Amino acid sequence: MRGKFITIEGIEGSGKTTQIKYIEEYLKEKNIPHLITREPGGTVLGKKIRELLLNPGYKVVPEAEILLYLADRAQHVGEKIIPHLEKGVWVISDRYFDSTLAYQGYGRGFDINLLKTFITFATRGLVPDLTILIDVPPEEGLARIKKRGEFDRLEREALEFHRRVREGFLEIAKDYRFRRVDGQKKPKEIFLEIKRFLEELNG
Amino acid sequence: MRGKFITIEGIEGSGKTTQIKYIEEYLKEKNIPHLITREPGGTVLGKKIRELLLNPGYKVVPEAEILLYLADRAQHVGEKIIPHLEKGVWVISDRYFDSTLAYQGYGRGFDINLLKTFITFATRGLVPDLTILIDVPPEEGLARIKKRGEFDRLEREALEFHRRVREGFLEIAKDYRFRRVDGQKKPKEIFLEIKRFLEELNG
Repeated sequence: MRGKFITIEGIEGSGKTTQIKYIEEYLKEKNIPHLITREPGGTVLGKKIRELLLNPGYKVVPEAEILLYLADRAQHVGEKIIPHLEKGVWVISDRYFDSTLAYQGYGRGFDINLLKTFITFATRGLVPDLTILIDVPPEEGLARIKKRGEFDRLEREALEFHRRVREGFLEIAKDYRFRRVDGQKKPKEIFLEIKRFLEELNG
Repeated sequence: MRGKFITIEGIEGSGKTTQIKYIEEYLKEKNIPHLITREPGGTVLGKKIRELLLNPGYKVVPEAEILLYLADRAQHVGEKIIPHLEKGVWVISDRYFDSTLAYQGYGRGFDINLLKTFITFATRGLVPDLTILIDVPPEEGLARIKKRGEFDRLEREALEFHRRVREGFLEIAKDYRFRRVDGQKKPKEIFLEIKRFLEELNG
């Protein structure tokens, strides 16, 4: 049987990493073969692409930035996600194409329908079985990130940008495959909700 | 006044480099400010992208390959070509989006209309004022390349692939902006034709 494909979305500091750890423990406990992966950078090529995007020696034009993210995604899907799903492995991805829609579409104002065309091409039409959106207000997400002293280029962007991204995620999350959880609850409480979604999927 | 944008297309071994040298001499002689550039790899980012594509350590999935070429193109257009044209500089590019159509579309069988949508995005709709297609039979192009001992990944591909690419170029070249020249003539003869096209453009 084909594995289930679950993606975790949310702005920076929403607590995705913590929840993915809980999901991993749950899948181990249930003896479900699984792969935890992430975008960008889930493959060797993807890591190299990410280095190009974070390299400070030149300014990447916005169109090139989107195409590089999409190339990373295409490689991730073709080399890693699809082959694992076909072997019956559940794949959990920290971010997937909804991040492109939220960040590049809602955040930066690129045409959503054009982005969807690109995404369908890059992902060979692969849609997750379940997407969990961990929703937090950008003020809280950014405050958490500051506390742990982690800043990358995206995280340095203005609060206003992250507001648009969050609104984008909430808009996208109206799709049936989404389950929205409140990222302001305690991590263990959040996971109790997520666990129910996983059980539905496995049932 | 905006500079003219001229692109040179053709399969490997068609003699593009030689003709571009002649074009450069012509533009110098006429005191026309110009920039000679190339794809892939016309920018620092582009060179790095090209390294990723030629790196033999992993297999790049076809969708990722196209997106990486497009990212290179987007950076090339946004960082280099458009700013130069706006300053009145003539830009001569060794390959441009017609190569994507010929190689990825006609050569590898990707959907031509989808590729055109991608190209319009990546290039911000920038279409050359003139495209010169140097047409040679693939047997001849490949024989010339073998003679100079140059082989890259693309050049190692089968003759059949290059036949499709050439047919693609001939199909694309029906567009009004194209001028087809016979790459089997002597280089100086070919340039006499090209020179007429340049004079039309400058007139």
